[in-house]
Amino acid sequence: MKKPSLLYYFAKAKRLQAEGKDVLGFTLTSPEFPAPDWLEEEVRKIFSQSFPYLPSGGDFELRRKLADNYAQKWNCQLAEGNLFVGTGGKEVLYILLSLLLKKGGEVVVFSPHWATYSKMVDLLGGKMKCVAGSEKDGFYPNLEKLKKTITSKTKAVILNSPNNPTGRITKEEDVKALAELALKKNFVLICDEVYENYDYENIYVSALKYFNKNVFCVFSASKTFSLCGWRIGWGAGDAEIVQNMINIQSEITTSPNSLAQLALKSLFSSEQKLKDYLETTRNEAKKRRDLAVAFLREKKIDFIYPEGCIAVFVRIPKKYNDSFVFTDDLLEKDLVSVAPGSIFGAKKYFRMNLSVSIDMLKKGLERIAKYYED
Amino acid sequence: MKKPSLLYYFAKAKRLQAEGKDVLGFTLTSPEFPAPDWLEEEVRKIFSQSFPYLPSGGDFELRRKLADNYAQKWNCQLAEGNLFVGTGGKEVLYILLSLLLKKGGEVVVFSPHWATYSKMVDLLGGKMKCVAGSEKDGFYPNLEKLKKTITSKTKAVILNSPNNPTGRITKEEDVKALAELALKKNFVLICDEVYENYDYENIYVSALKYFNKNVFCVFSASKTFSLCGWRIGWGAGDAEIVQNMINIQSEITTSPNSLAQLALKSLFSSEQKLKDYLETTRNEAKKRRDLAVAFLREKKIDFIYPEGCIAVFVRIPKKYNDSFVFTDDLLEKDLVSVAPGSIFGAKKYFRMNLSVSIDMLKKGLERIAKYYED
Repeated sequence: MKKPSLLYYFAKAKRLQAEGKDVLGFTLTSPEFPAPDWLEEEVRKIFSQSFPYLPSGGDFELRRKLADNYAQKWNCQLAEGNLFVGTGGKEVLYILLSLLLKKGGEVVVFSPHWATYSKMVDLLGGKMKCVAGSEKDGFYPNLEKLKKTITSKTKAVILNSPNNPTGRITKEEDVKALAELALKKNFVLICDEVYENYDYENIYVSALKYFNKNVFCVFSASKTFSLCGWRIGWGAGDAEIVQNMINIQSEITTSPNSLAQLALKSLFSSEQKLKDYLETTRNEAKKRRDLAVAFLREKKIDFIYPEGCIAVFVRIPKKYNDSFVFTDDLLEKDLVSVAPGSIFGAKKYFRMNLSVSIDMLKKGLERIAKYYED
Repeated sequence: MKKPSLLYYFAKAKRLQAEGKDVLGFTLTSPEFPAPDWLEEEVRKIFSQSFPYLPSGGDFELRRKLADNYAQKWNCQLAEGNLFVGTGGKEVLYILLSLLLKKGGEVVVFSPHWATYSKMVDLLGGKMKCVAGSEKDGFYPNLEKLKKTITSKTKAVILNSPNNPTGRITKEEDVKALAELALKKNFVLICDEVYENYDYENIYVSALKYFNKNVFCVFSASKTFSLCGWRIGWGAGDAEIVQNMINIQSEITTSPNSLAQLALKSLFSSEQKLKDYLETTRNEAKKRRDLAVAFLREKKIDFIYPEGCIAVFVRIPKKYNDSFVFTDDLLEKDLVSVAPGSIFGAKKYFRMNLSVSIDMLKKGLERIAKYYED
C-alpha cells in the first residue's frame, strides 16, 4: 500500500478549510509561536539588499555568525567553512544524503521516525534500514540493535533529538557513543536537531559537543523561529563535506532566499534579544506540553511522554487497528487533522502538533478524547 | 579536466571584492534592473502572513493566477493543476528532471547551453547528449541533427529560448515542430523560457502556444523581476507531471519561500502595473544590448548577435586558445569577471552579462577591448 504523505494530509485539511469548514490543523509540526518581534524592522532595513543572489552554501558572514554561535554553545571548533545554509533543514538533509549516497549505500534510522528520511533515501536510490524503537525501550535509540544493523555499506545513521514524533531526547552518553561509533565505523552521524530549542527537562545535548569529521548536525529557522514559510535551515559538519554540498546546492537551488538569509543574520546578531526570544518561546511550548500531558493523563489516554519537541505521540483508540483509518475518521467526521503514526512507522499511534494556540489545543484535545469514550 | 562552475567564478569575484578590489562582475546572468517599485509596499502588507508553510507546488491562488496569465498570453488551456512553483526556475528544472530520470535515461540539449543542465543530469544519474550548435547554423537549434540523436531512451529534450548564452531566439516554426516531435517520440520538451521578457526583435514564441501533455515550460522571477535572491520560479506542464513533481518537492524543500510566493501573487494581480514594468525593463535591457552590439562592432570583435536574453556571447581574442585561460587573465589582471564559454560547451567564447548599469557596462567593455588590440 502506498502511504499518503504528511503534506497530503496538510493539503487535505487546507482544502477543507478553503471550503469554509472549521478544521483544526495539527498535522505538521510547524510551530505557530510569534516570530521574533524585531524581525519586521530588520527586514525593512535589509529589503533593498535582498535582490541579488547570495553565494551557494550561504552568505559568508551568516555562516561565520552561526559557526561562532554553536562553537560557543557546545564548546567545539567551528569556522565559516563548517557551516552550510539551505532552503530549510530539509534541503540541508537532502543535499547531504545526495552526497553520501552518490554511489548508493545504506542509511540507518531509528524508528519511529520522520517520514521524509525514508522518502529522501528512496528518491536518491539508497537503501533505508530501520532500528525499530519499542515501548519497552521508551522509544529511546537502542545502540546495541544499531551495532548489529551497521554494515560496510552504511553511509549514514540519522539520529533525531529532540525526537519527532516521540518527543524523546537522546541521553548525553548515547550521543557521545554515537559520535565515536561514527568515526570508528566510518559513517556520517546525521543529527537532526531542528527542535534544539524545545527541551523541557534540560536533557538535550547536541552532537556538536562531541564534534568530529563524521558528525553533521542540522538546524532550522522553521522550528527555532516559527519561520516555517521562510524556508531556511543550516547545518554544521566537516568542511570538506560542506564544500561538496555547496557544489550540489549550486545546481539545485543556487542558495536559499536572500531576504531570509539576511534576516537570519540579523537574528543571530542580537545576542540578548535572541536569548530572551528563545526562552520565551520555550516557556510557551512547555505550557502546551504540560497542558496536553495533564489532559491525556486525566482522560487515561496512552501517549509517549514528550521531554522535548513540540508534538505528542498518542496511541490510537483501541477500537482502531490502523492509524490511517483513525486519522481519516478524525478529519472527515470531527474536522481535526493529525498525522497518522504509520507515516513514522508506528501504526498504533498518531502525532499531534502542540505548538498552536492554547484555545485550539484544548478544542482539539476535546474532539479527540471523544474517540476514547465508551 | 574538471571544469569550475559559474558560481565558482562568481564566488571568486565576490572574494576579490571583499578584499577591496574594484572588480566588475559580469559572471552570472542575473539582471540588476530595479525590482517592481510597488513590491516593498506589498511585502509590508503580506509580511505577517508569510510565516506558515504554503502547500508544496505553491499557493493555490498563485498557481491559478499564473495559469490564467499564460493561458491568456499564449491562448492555451491551463488550470491551477498545470502550474508548479519552485525555489527558482532551477528547482523546477531539477525536480522535473529527477522525475523523468527516475529510472535513468537520456536528456538531449542543444549546445552551447547553460552548464547547469548537464550538472543536473549528472547528479541524477542520467546521460546527457548534446546536439552541437554551429556558427554556420547561427547557433539556432538544428532539428535534423536532433532527430538523429533521439533514441527510445530519450526522456527529455531541453530547448532554451531566448537562449543563454547565445541570445538567440528559436523561430516559431521550430518551436511548433519540437512540440509535435515531443508528442510523436514520447519525450518531454522542456522549454527553459526564463528570459521570456527579453525579446528585442519580437521573435519569441512560448512553447505554450503549442502546448500538449509533453511540453513543460519554465519561468523565473530572478530573470523577469530581477529578484534573483528571492529564489522563485514556476513551470507549466501536464497536470500529472506537476502532481508527481509536487510529491518530490514535498521531500526536498517543502515549498518555496512564502513571502516570495505571496509577493509574486501580488505582482501578477496588478495587470497594468505588471505590463508597464515588463515593458520598461525590456527597454532598459535593449539599451544595453544595443550599446554592447555597437561597441563590439566598432572594435571589430566577433560575437553572436543577441536577439534576446541579457548577455552577449563573444569570441575570445585570437591569441587565446581556451576561454578558461582568458577568463582567468581578465579577472586576475583587469578585474573583470565574465563566464568562460567552455562552461557552456564553446571554448572559443565568453559570456558577458549585459544587465548592469550603463556605466559599468562601458567600463567593462573598455577593459575587455584592450585584449583585442595589437
